[in-house]
Amino acid sequence: MKIGIYGYGNLGKGVECAIMQNPDAELVAVFTRRDPETVKILTPNAKVIKADRVLEYKDEIDVMIICGGSATDLPVMTPELAKSFNVIDSFDTHANIPTHFKNVDASARDNGNIALISAGWDPGMFSVSRLMASAILPYGKDYTFWGRGVSQGHSDAIRRIEGVADARQYTCPVEEAMNKVRAGENPELSVRQKHTRECFVVAEEGADLDRIEKEIVTMPNYFADYDTTVTFITKEELERDHKGIPHGGSVIRTGVTGKDKENKEIIEYKLTLDSNPEFTASVILCYARAICKMRSRGITGCVTVFDVAPRDMSALPYEEMLAHML
Amino acid sequence: MKIGIYGYGNLGKGVECAIMQNPDAELVAVFTRRDPETVKILTPNAKVIKADRVLEYKDEIDVMIICGGSATDLPVMTPELAKSFNVIDSFDTHANIPTHFKNVDASARDNGNIALISAGWDPGMFSVSRLMASAILPYGKDYTFWGRGVSQGHSDAIRRIEGVADARQYTCPVEEAMNKVRAGENPELSVRQKHTRECFVVAEEGADLDRIEKEIVTMPNYFADYDTTVTFITKEELERDHKGIPHGGSVIRTGVTGKDKENKEIIEYKLTLDSNPEFTASVILCYARAICKMRSRGITGCVTVFDVAPRDMSALPYEEMLAHML
Repeated sequence: MKIGIYGYGNLGKGVECAIMQNPDAELVAVFTRRDPETVKILTPNAKVIKADRVLEYKDEIDVMIICGGSATDLPVMTPELAKSFNVIDSFDTHANIPTHFKNVDASARDNGNIALISAGWDPGMFSVSRLMASAILPYGKDYTFWGRGVSQGHSDAIRRIEGVADARQYTCPVEEAMNKVRAGENPELSVRQKHTRECFVVAEEGADLDRIEKEIVTMPNYFADYDTTVTFITKEELERDHKGIPHGGSVIRTGVTGKDKENKEIIEYKLTLDSNPEFTASVILCYARAICKMRSRGITGCVTVFDVAPRDMSALPYEEMLAHML
Repeated sequence: MKIGIYGYGNLGKGVECAIMQNPDAELVAVFTRRDPETVKILTPNAKVIKADRVLEYKDEIDVMIICGGSATDLPVMTPELAKSFNVIDSFDTHANIPTHFKNVDASARDNGNIALISAGWDPGMFSVSRLMASAILPYGKDYTFWGRGVSQGHSDAIRRIEGVADARQYTCPVEEAMNKVRAGENPELSVRQKHTRECFVVAEEGADLDRIEKEIVTMPNYFADYDTTVTFITKEELERDHKGIPHGGSVIRTGVTGKDKENKEIIEYKLTLDSNPEFTASVILCYARAICKMRSRGITGCVTVFDVAPRDMSALPYEEMLAHML
């Protein structure tokens, strides 16, 4: 399958690395809003093209992987590109998924393309796990824990505070709460009881540290509902100790079975990731493969990870799956 | 969907309990090789019918769930019943799956039915996890740990030894090996290093305990390759402490991503089950729902869990999935 990458930030770079690991995938071009001359990519034979020339590649690309942000990029980019390409994105504003789906569906369907939105791990593999587990255990309770991992959105929120030069925010699951869930105790957990937030902040010289700390821990939506710790560090420490973009988490479903609901059953899907964007990209590439196969069976319009059979995610021949993976 | 249960052992009973938890499923009849008068079921309005009268129910059942053993029952039953019904089984002799698939496919396809084989958790949910994880992380290593849980096959093997009145065998994962895998160390593990086997044996009066123990721990295929412990207990202790049929385990994929494969990513799917047959039955019911939906879209022949999109396993409307599960 011939792949285009639209947007070359952390996620786009991750997709390029994922393509290198999959012999059935080939990178045709990276499309960028920056000056192509300034963008260096890893793949020797792929091109770097100015984003506004993307339509010239309409017939050379099987799937366009759109690596934009969910806030403002994807709501515009995905419906627009779905007019000309089979596309996939990682739209992750959960509340707006139904609207995004509708917009992408209309433009993909009208033009005979297939589009898959919200691929990655959450939304993505975590969603698949939630759906399957709740179908298997209808009498049960869902828990999702995230972390320990870097939250880009929360790090950005700290950076916007006056006097902050740089920051890294980790979302941390509360071990005790997770252990209760894993023990099948079915606890009712508040937002505060599930996660804590660790902030590592580089302040500008002479900045008022007390004020910065107070602004962080009281920030509504982002930090006010959590136990938040703020640690001031140097620029050097940030670069030395907080360079990576790890993340992960667990989707846990605890349910009951039996005549009198007397038996507990627990399903857990857990990710431990050194690189959030590279893992997200690896998932996206599987779904890119899937929509190629689905398109060749005549499927058009918008789909999600819920529509994809595991078989279509894999490059293995079906016979091999039956013999070795089932 | 109208369900028939063919065979009413532990698994069949589990399916009946699962049907009670799913308002879109209705039990029409249990088919048994025993005298129907002697079989008491839980569902007030369902019938108990002699197995040889099954064809009389051809038009009343949407999916027949076949709850027989993999050794001799299913290789015959599933292809035979797939001539007249949409069927699902939990065939779990991994090595014979390709042959079983071929036989079932021919008879289902020739008669316009759909059949799903090898549903449950291994094969089943573990297979789906293995396939997805290996597709996502092509550079990686798979580990499956089972237990702690009762192995029916190994318990039976002990019971066949002279002087044994009853027995229960637990397969136990080696904690240390599992921790190494979860830490991303990618160890090479022998059979012995992954699992131990705990045997609780009720001996007949006057039996030679030393001989029994020796016969167990040296039994080829079943125990010789494992560190096996044998504990003799009384019939009362067996009934008091070993009545349940717990099981579970983990499928772990450890892989690497990045330009220089510098980042570790770990995917784990873990089950902790009080009742192996009830959980297996709960999974089977989801796949029964799925093949009803797939059949209504015109799909016939043999399929597996690899062919099923998560969407088809769930009773939720798609709009609700998008809004709340993605």
